[in-house]
Amino acid sequence: MAMKQTIRPLLRLNALQTTSSSSNFSTRHTLSTFSHRPSTPQLDLSRALIKPSFPRSTFQQSFRRSYADISAPKPKRRIRRTLRWLWRFTYLGVIGFLGYTGYTIYLLRTPSEQDEADPRKKTLVILGTGWGAVSLLKKLDTENYNVIVISPRNFFLFTPLLPSCTTGTIEHRSIMEPVRNILRHKKTTVKYYEAEATKIDYQKKVVYINDDSEIKGDTSSTEVPFDMLVVGVGAENATFGIPGVREYSCFLKEVGDAQQIRKRIMDCVETASFKDQSPEERKRLLHMVVVGGGPTGVEFAGELQDFFEQDLKKWVPEIVDNFHVTLVEALPNVLPMFSKQLIDYTEKSFKEESITIRTKTMVKNVTDKTIEAEFTRPDGTKEKEILPYGLLVWATGNALRPVVKDLMSQIPAQKDSRRGLAVNEYLVVNGTENIWAVGDCAIANYAPTAQVASQEGAFLARLFNSLAKTETINAELANLSVEQAKATGEERTQALNNIKALQKQLRRVKQIGPFEYSHQGSLAYIGHDKAVADISWLSGNIASGGTITYWFWKSAYVNMCFSTRNRMLVLVDWVKSYIFGRDVSRE
Amino acid sequence: MAMKQTIRPLLRLNALQTTSSSSNFSTRHTLSTFSHRPSTPQLDLSRALIKPSFPRSTFQQSFRRSYADISAPKPKRRIRRTLRWLWRFTYLGVIGFLGYTGYTIYLLRTPSEQDEADPRKKTLVILGTGWGAVSLLKKLDTENYNVIVISPRNFFLFTPLLPSCTTGTIEHRSIMEPVRNILRHKKTTVKYYEAEATKIDYQKKVVYINDDSEIKGDTSSTEVPFDMLVVGVGAENATFGIPGVREYSCFLKEVGDAQQIRKRIMDCVETASFKDQSPEERKRLLHMVVVGGGPTGVEFAGELQDFFEQDLKKWVPEIVDNFHVTLVEALPNVLPMFSKQLIDYTEKSFKEESITIRTKTMVKNVTDKTIEAEFTRPDGTKEKEILPYGLLVWATGNALRPVVKDLMSQIPAQKDSRRGLAVNEYLVVNGTENIWAVGDCAIANYAPTAQVASQEGAFLARLFNSLAKTETINAELANLSVEQAKATGEERTQALNNIKALQKQLRRVKQIGPFEYSHQGSLAYIGHDKAVADISWLSGNIASGGTITYWFWKSAYVNMCFSTRNRMLVLVDWVKSYIFGRDVSRE
Repeated sequence: MAMKQTIRPLLRLNALQTTSSSSNFSTRHTLSTFSHRPSTPQLDLSRALIKPSFPRSTFQQSFRRSYADISAPKPKRRIRRTLRWLWRFTYLGVIGFLGYTGYTIYLLRTPSEQDEADPRKKTLVILGTGWGAVSLLKKLDTENYNVIVISPRNFFLFTPLLPSCTTGTIEHRSIMEPVRNILRHKKTTVKYYEAEATKIDYQKKVVYINDDSEIKGDTSSTEVPFDMLVVGVGAENATFGIPGVREYSCFLKEVGDAQQIRKRIMDCVETASFKDQSPEERKRLLHMVVVGGGPTGVEFAGELQDFFEQDLKKWVPEIVDNFHVTLVEALPNVLPMFSKQLIDYTEKSFKEESITIRTKTMVKNVTDKTIEAEFTRPDGTKEKEILPYGLLVWATGNALRPVVKDLMSQIPAQKDSRRGLAVNEYLVVNGTENIWAVGDCAIANYAPTAQVASQEGAFLARLFNSLAKTETINAELANLSVEQAKATGEERTQALNNIKALQKQLRRVKQIGPFEYSHQGSLAYIGHDKAVADISWLSGNIASGGTITYWFWKSAYVNMCFSTRNRMLVLVDWVKSYIFGRDVSRE
Repeated sequence: MAMKQTIRPLLRLNALQTTSSSSNFSTRHTLSTFSHRPSTPQLDLSRALIKPSFPRSTFQQSFRRSYADISAPKPKRRIRRTLRWLWRFTYLGVIGFLGYTGYTIYLLRTPSEQDEADPRKKTLVILGTGWGAVSLLKKLDTENYNVIVISPRNFFLFTPLLPSCTTGTIEHRSIMEPVRNILRHKKTTVKYYEAEATKIDYQKKVVYINDDSEIKGDTSSTEVPFDMLVVGVGAENATFGIPGVREYSCFLKEVGDAQQIRKRIMDCVETASFKDQSPEERKRLLHMVVVGGGPTGVEFAGELQDFFEQDLKKWVPEIVDNFHVTLVEALPNVLPMFSKQLIDYTEKSFKEESITIRTKTMVKNVTDKTIEAEFTRPDGTKEKEILPYGLLVWATGNALRPVVKDLMSQIPAQKDSRRGLAVNEYLVVNGTENIWAVGDCAIANYAPTAQVASQEGAFLARLFNSLAKTETINAELANLSVEQAKATGEERTQALNNIKALQKQLRRVKQIGPFEYSHQGSLAYIGHDKAVADISWLSGNIASGGTITYWFWKSAYVNMCFSTRNRMLVLVDWVKSYIFGRDVSRE
């Protein structure tokens, strides 16, 4: 709007001046001069045109006058021209962008007719709708298989932005993409069952599933046979056997967790403002403890402090003196996957934001109101202390899901594996032939991150697409083999040539190397409009931190969102919370 | 954007033509002609200006040509001129609107410093944060009292749009306004306790409160003494003693209810799509029953059918044949407060949308999967039937809250009252002197609607403001009375005059008549972009239904939203669900 306002008057003025300088009465000509060559010297042209109708001297005189008027602001004209072109590019850019976005949304909203899945094809069962499973689904050619997706969660969740949902900077629905929307856009229908896989019988090739939602039908548990199975069920929250963690803390893995935290923050604030609450109790209730110094914990701590600084402080002034965020980490520093200078930067920033970081501190026990922790002093001695808390968020550790544990117990080759399903370089679960595993439940020597899971899923999609092609070619080869045996002369040569061509194709298709993870980098928001980023670049690494990195963080995450819909919704939410602030309702 | 594109080229062309027609070389003059008097005949002015420098005949010749060029599109010029002005007005209108909105949001986000409440003033306790309480708070001059607000819900909920939240047409946070935001904008601080009032002791003048949220402090129940009390706690859902209603149905009164319904709709859909679900079970799960033919029930049924038609059908095609909505009402027709033709129109529209309406049908018993109902035939005989259902929404009936029931039992004057606190024409609870009641818990012979509650709250605010003024004047009068007794001569006359003036003021302030409800009309959305409206107009009534009424419904509700923030958020949500459709994730 602002741009339009400044540029429009300029354009108008320009039109008038050009006209008067060219001293020309033909509207059409003026218009074309204006729009195509506003800067060509008008002198000769004007003279040539006007000569027959005006006595030369009169014209020259008047022209000189007008030319003199014009000659002075010549540099200004250049600026105007540049501005005009800039404006036009912006204009066209915006139209192009809107058109493209509109078209993308149109495509998203209007799925085309799907082919029915062919029951004679191999049944590929995918467990899960997280990063691994969805990235596999996105790239899989579903016409090659009978695809069935099973997950208790009928949407994909863009987990990197989950910490922002805990304070309402963005709404959780903006980072959820319904699995139905994903599946309806595949060429061939894919079945989806909202259920939990309770047991995988890898010898019988059957998955047992159970609908454990609130509303159950007559059939609420059944079995699904498979030819190929992809396990992408993720991991549970690990409490490392510390008493009280499961009972009293909030996790930060699912949408429900973020909603619970959001409610609890306001609950602590309101309970602290309750009539006749004692000062110590008020202090306890407003002490927010985050355990886990990984990106999730750090981002949550940053978001929480932002929420306090930008909103809570203003609307509930009575809590100003007592609100406090503490980040607890057992290791010697937070964000262990980041480079040293970024760790220091984060710790410095947290200090400025008055978030306390307690490293080398192990949680030993949790009760409803206190955390018992053990701090290791620089000299190696240990010290116990009691931290009273109002809200405890447990943002560390992955544990095996029961279904994975059970599968591992069935397979002798998995007996040494502890943290998940050991897989080979093609992500095949060791000891099986037709089961693959991706994401946090698979152990392929990479960190349990969204990035790894997503690349694994995409790799499997390529692998399965190529497997299907291989099978088609093999079938054709078998046919041709029979054919050439019966054929003679020219026909036989033709058949043999076909066989050669197909074998060449086969070699190309089969050339899928083992899975290799390519690390793109790590990002984390650290509060107060600052972020840190460790980005892989060529063979090196770029480490940066600050407000510009925050904008990079924003644009990277928006870019990584699953769909245009998610992208737009996240942007709208950011604008919303920027304009109106975050909501302080407890709900 | 489109408007700008079409109008900008017009403007430019116009500018050039005006210039050439006036045949004038002075840029400044042309500009002023253009911008101020584009239509004045330019003939004489141009002649006068140009006469000295051009030979007349040449000029006239060329002028005639150019004048001839111009004379043809004269009507077009008029259109252009109109368009130009229209554009300018739009332009200025938009700038004005944006400026105003921006300023309003700025004010909303930057509360000013508040005065501390004076503990010597009377303590006014307000129970509730619904329509009655919030409308009272909005207009109350808080500097006159020690105001304390107590409610288990720390936000105001714009209930008329709640049915839209059940399907995600709008998000619940868009219709919530934190009570903290409301209170921080009052001149003098107002205390707020998030708690449930468990008992009112009207003789001891004390309210007992209890924090029944998840997080409790050491102090979680206490007492609050009051001088004046306003009871605006609303009502509970009534089940009329029908077995199974409380266990198996969803209500539609609070934000949590809407969230639960939203989750259950998708749960029914997913459970119906579960592997090997039998056809009858699938039909049962997709049968959505709404009990209550008032605006809430009708709007919810309409929204649900919209959700199916516009979104579910597309993303979960397997449920197309089985999804069905039924509206059950005990009375002979739905929307009893609307005029006959609108009732017929609603019933006809529902038929077209294939929503079944079952009037004269009483629910007798509810189990986890079936509703037992009794239908009265036109001949008066009764018929029992069993309706299998997947989702049951109970949108009818108000019952007393325990705290109100208890208060009524303490006051002898309330012994004949059944449905709520009987109040006099000034909303004073009968049998008490310092307790007022507003909204659904007060019985003042009006329907239990948001409109009534809101007007009652506003009335009480006026009453309390005037009471405070009266007391101030009375205190001054007492002072003057003492003064005039001691004074003599001129001073005494002066004092007497002051007394007279104050008494006049007192009469004016005291002139608050009894509460009178002014009905503005009734509105209901009936699905498929149609609404019905019965609007009071002068002494009559305007009844209308259809798509235009739907736009009226939208604009009326946006207008009624509590704050600019709510208004904008609701608009954004409508645009969001229009562009991207509703979310089919179960969460």
